[in-house]
Amino acid sequence: MSLSLYQASIPLFTQILGGLSAVLRKAEAHATDKKIDPNALLQARLFPDMFPLTRQVQIAADFAKSAAARLAGVDVPAYEDSETSFADLQARIAKTLAFIQSVPAADIDAGFERSIVLRPGTPNEKTFVGTSYLLNYTLPHFFFHTTTAYDILRHNGVEIGKKDFVGTW
Amino acid sequence: MSLSLYQASIPLFTQILGGLSAVLRKAEAHATDKKIDPNALLQARLFPDMFPLTRQVQIAADFAKSAAARLAGVDVPAYEDSETSFADLQARIAKTLAFIQSVPAADIDAGFERSIVLRPGTPNEKTFVGTSYLLNYTLPHFFFHTTTAYDILRHNGVEIGKKDFVGTW
Repeated sequence: MSLSLYQASIPLFTQILGGLSAVLRKAEAHATDKKIDPNALLQARLFPDMFPLTRQVQIAADFAKSAAARLAGVDVPAYEDSETSFADLQARIAKTLAFIQSVPAADIDAGFERSIVLRPGTPNEKTFVGTSYLLNYTLPHFFFHTTTAYDILRHNGVEIGKKDFVGTW
Repeated sequence: MSLSLYQASIPLFTQILGGLSAVLRKAEAHATDKKIDPNALLQARLFPDMFPLTRQVQIAADFAKSAAARLAGVDVPAYEDSETSFADLQARIAKTLAFIQSVPAADIDAGFERSIVLRPGTPNEKTFVGTSYLLNYTLPHFFFHTTTAYDILRHNGVEIGKKDFVGTW
């Protein structure tokens, strides 16, 4: 009568990153159809001091990658933030999905009471237990960036709906 | 070595609805300071066919309310969507928090394998088991609307940050 950490992480990240990938495919098709410079979408922001679409996607993917690694107690793989096209963003999502799905479920579940230290040795160091790291920290940040990516595209007239965001499972 | 349904629902809704309440307080203060008609924010949208701020808050709160009720197997309380001010939205959030916190944790946990039917008897009828209803359906929709409420306000120049959105726990 309980959930595993795995259930509440990898399949949910997979579902939502799949939705994000579909949303980005529609955005790319929209740019092509309307002869819009893809950078007009890739660099779009909701406010001058918010991150643009490309950065929102990178950060969202990184929250999934980091959670899978830290819960399992393995090193977080380093990905360069060098994406400059829709194809690059799709590759970033695909690489992230491949990594999180490669981590054995039992290793994720073993992170239940693991002590997870973010930004160690800095003034912003923060220590979590595994459950709280997933539920109270990772999920809010992950959904914040995936939704904001969607909102940037919707605000720019891309024809997407919440069903695309929610994805399939 | 596992999570309860309760852990993955009520405390997380409470955290994020608390963040939403703080974000709305800052938005109201911003409108007062800048002598902006509150409706300019309450009725703001990111695109003409998206819901405005007030509706985003109502829907977000309803996903939390419905999940608490359905997982516990009790009737979903009906709230009228009559909010027209920031004070009304704060009251809606407070009422929602009071309800979800009134549901015994054991009753939520008992929803683990409960069959939950959405829109029964309609062409869009959909049946979930409790865990999937919470993880794959409720959490994405809940975070979608809370984040979009934040994004609407941020887009309109309210000085809020992701820390406000994430809230405290």
